[in-house]
Amino acid sequence: MLKQKLKQALRPLVAASGSPRPPLPPSLWQLEHQPGRGLCLDGLSLHELLSRWGSPLHVVHAGALAQKAAAFQEGAGDACETFYSYKTNPVPGVLRFLHARGIGAEVISPYELWLAFRLGVPADRIIYNGPAKSVESLREALTKGVRLVNANHREEMAKIAAVANEVGVRAPLGIRVAPPQGWAGQFGIPIAGGEALRAFEEALAEPAFEVKALHAHFGFPIRSEAQLADLTGAVLGFCDELHGRFRFEPTYLDFGGSLAIPTVADMSASERRLNRTFLRPLSPPDHTAAVAPAAYVRRLMEATAQHFRSRGRNAPRLLLEPGRALTGSTQMLLASVVETKRAADGTTFAILDAGINLAETVRYQYHQLFPVNRYGEPPAQTYRLVGPICSPGDILYDACPLPALQPGDSLAVMDAGAYFVPFSTSFSFPQPAIVMVEDGRARLLRRAETFEDLVLLDE
Amino acid sequence: MLKQKLKQALRPLVAASGSPRPPLPPSLWQLEHQPGRGLCLDGLSLHELLSRWGSPLHVVHAGALAQKAAAFQEGAGDACETFYSYKTNPVPGVLRFLHARGIGAEVISPYELWLAFRLGVPADRIIYNGPAKSVESLREALTKGVRLVNANHREEMAKIAAVANEVGVRAPLGIRVAPPQGWAGQFGIPIAGGEALRAFEEALAEPAFEVKALHAHFGFPIRSEAQLADLTGAVLGFCDELHGRFRFEPTYLDFGGSLAIPTVADMSASERRLNRTFLRPLSPPDHTAAVAPAAYVRRLMEATAQHFRSRGRNAPRLLLEPGRALTGSTQMLLASVVETKRAADGTTFAILDAGINLAETVRYQYHQLFPVNRYGEPPAQTYRLVGPICSPGDILYDACPLPALQPGDSLAVMDAGAYFVPFSTSFSFPQPAIVMVEDGRARLLRRAETFEDLVLLDE
Repeated sequence: MLKQKLKQALRPLVAASGSPRPPLPPSLWQLEHQPGRGLCLDGLSLHELLSRWGSPLHVVHAGALAQKAAAFQEGAGDACETFYSYKTNPVPGVLRFLHARGIGAEVISPYELWLAFRLGVPADRIIYNGPAKSVESLREALTKGVRLVNANHREEMAKIAAVANEVGVRAPLGIRVAPPQGWAGQFGIPIAGGEALRAFEEALAEPAFEVKALHAHFGFPIRSEAQLADLTGAVLGFCDELHGRFRFEPTYLDFGGSLAIPTVADMSASERRLNRTFLRPLSPPDHTAAVAPAAYVRRLMEATAQHFRSRGRNAPRLLLEPGRALTGSTQMLLASVVETKRAADGTTFAILDAGINLAETVRYQYHQLFPVNRYGEPPAQTYRLVGPICSPGDILYDACPLPALQPGDSLAVMDAGAYFVPFSTSFSFPQPAIVMVEDGRARLLRRAETFEDLVLLDE
Repeated sequence: MLKQKLKQALRPLVAASGSPRPPLPPSLWQLEHQPGRGLCLDGLSLHELLSRWGSPLHVVHAGALAQKAAAFQEGAGDACETFYSYKTNPVPGVLRFLHARGIGAEVISPYELWLAFRLGVPADRIIYNGPAKSVESLREALTKGVRLVNANHREEMAKIAAVANEVGVRAPLGIRVAPPQGWAGQFGIPIAGGEALRAFEEALAEPAFEVKALHAHFGFPIRSEAQLADLTGAVLGFCDELHGRFRFEPTYLDFGGSLAIPTVADMSASERRLNRTFLRPLSPPDHTAAVAPAAYVRRLMEATAQHFRSRGRNAPRLLLEPGRALTGSTQMLLASVVETKRAADGTTFAILDAGINLAETVRYQYHQLFPVNRYGEPPAQTYRLVGPICSPGDILYDACPLPALQPGDSLAVMDAGAYFVPFSTSFSFPQPAIVMVEDGRARLLRRAETFEDLVLLDE
């Protein structure tokens, strides 16, 4: 009780401390507020979408998706090709949309390889990555002739060589290296200490390989020019080592993914705690400072061209594997209030029909939240937004000032196009439908799970 | 580099610090080591199960499940009934097995309510809980006559009353209270401060309700007699308040779940960090000190009987809603090594075909791990066990001494019968089959997802 009172006394002080940035405006996502209809996308009321398609609901914005696909490709030509990281948002309707706009497939599992072929992606437009490739899937990838198989680590190279020999083709090999400043763990072969160099030496001596690519991920979200320069510096420097030692020049430099979503950033535990305990507002990231896709592509191309030009060598072609930066901000998750519950400490719970079962990353990342049908009404209350799954960890937002909410009101969690769908579970509640809004109309990409779907595989 | 060397120099010292308990023996799970066949269950080689049913694989042990079901019911009679928490492991084959042995259904969502009816559970053997009950599901529950609808909070009571009036029945109501020492959050109405008392007053005055139960969860895993006494003390004390104020005696005391799995316990972040950085072995919980199901039931019955006897009142009947304590230790997740990867720091990665996509709770809970086909071989190496999903967070065990592993070797993660299946995702890899081993034979409960299954709902 004393602790409770102390907390309440300190709240105004802590809440006002620091100077958090204001919440981001809906216009960043091309959302419009139409009085009486709430937030609208392409002229469609989001709240009405829920009435039509059910709640919760994923909404993909075709216009934004097309813009992002274009941003990665404008001015790139053949010198820089983009392959979408399937794992980020493996929704066939989204993938098809991207493929139709010139984006290839970056896959990391037998299933994703199968899916790319099923969606009609030409083998040459597929890159096969990941630490756990099965022999069967390698057989398929090599037989059909994918663009690249990137070896994750040295031990995997022997497996790839064996399959290549078995099916009688030379494997178009890339080698994933871990740049010194990046994160490695189970992924990639460290440049530091000479390991990556030895892997290339080994690969170049292996007749089953046609060594084509140097593959690297930064590993942490790239937000700044400086981070990007770090990555290019490490990769281009390693190219010089490869050239100096083996006179080897890769056909492709595969710069992987890692480009951040400007409006999303990891929250620290302390930030979240201050928000929870003292209701200090969460601060959105400075989206204007983040490197945008077009600038990212331009910088990579310029840095590469300049590096090789200054050394009198021909520059390799670039491959990119964006995930979150391509689809992250083009999708939102709409949810509805099922119940409210006043708590003794002055906050009120709003129990939503979507929680960590559908939005796991909101636990540790800032994602802008909007009230949908009540947009524009003044904040009436600090809400703790929780999900439906009857688990203490099912908290999406600890403390969020919002208009007075009633059951049936709707909210939008923005930037749901990366790692929401693949991390979704069917924990006690079936998974929602996914619709695409295109030219002012909504169409179904994936129907909602039914109760029957959840026991379809059971005896 | 310096940091790396320092870490390696400190490892032997830190690893030997403290005195962690030794790993738990396979016999605790009725596993036998048969030379040449590895670990066996009911005479079946686990490694051979993988060859037959594919890897990864969930294996339910029917014998253990029957024993647990019996432990909750022996000597309980009509005075104490057990309802399994569906959300913990919502596998129809497991649920049917439990229902056939006298266990009822505790459900927390419209889907779970539907599932209980589909499995033929009589309405009287169903308790409906949770913070997010839909109007439709309440209509069904009340029309069909479930045993109890437990209101999660006061605001929900109005909704339940409205539906009861609409369908023309009195709702068999329980009220979930939050004991002072437990965790509340979005769940339950605090006893402290008089909130719970006011909720009962309101409910007793509402003609749409037949107030039948007092419902409470401890909220944290119950391992000790002292914790159990805390819970019973709070609930029984509140019964006296209800009796004193309103002359009201509930028909049922619903003690909820929360009973721990003896062989599982949460790990602290520092414990995990010491394991990761200095390879200090993880310490299993002291399973002998944990309250077992039969003792738990006995204690609750005795405490309740004594409390009411000493006050000259008739004791209510008890309802229990165990989840993890009933199924947790009766299921294991088998996985295979896909690849190994030597790391520069002296550890070796073993990349498994199952990671946090299937075993999310292993990130923060101790779960005993066994090498399956190599059981009994001496530890050769410290392994970091990671999953296949190409995400830096996909680490199951940071540092685990194991025999020398080869691709194709198998491992068993124990106590996978609670919160493994419901928290599973189809992230890049389809979800595995679930088999039940019964009387020395394995039969399929749920087939593995196919690639086609993963796009079945897509346009």
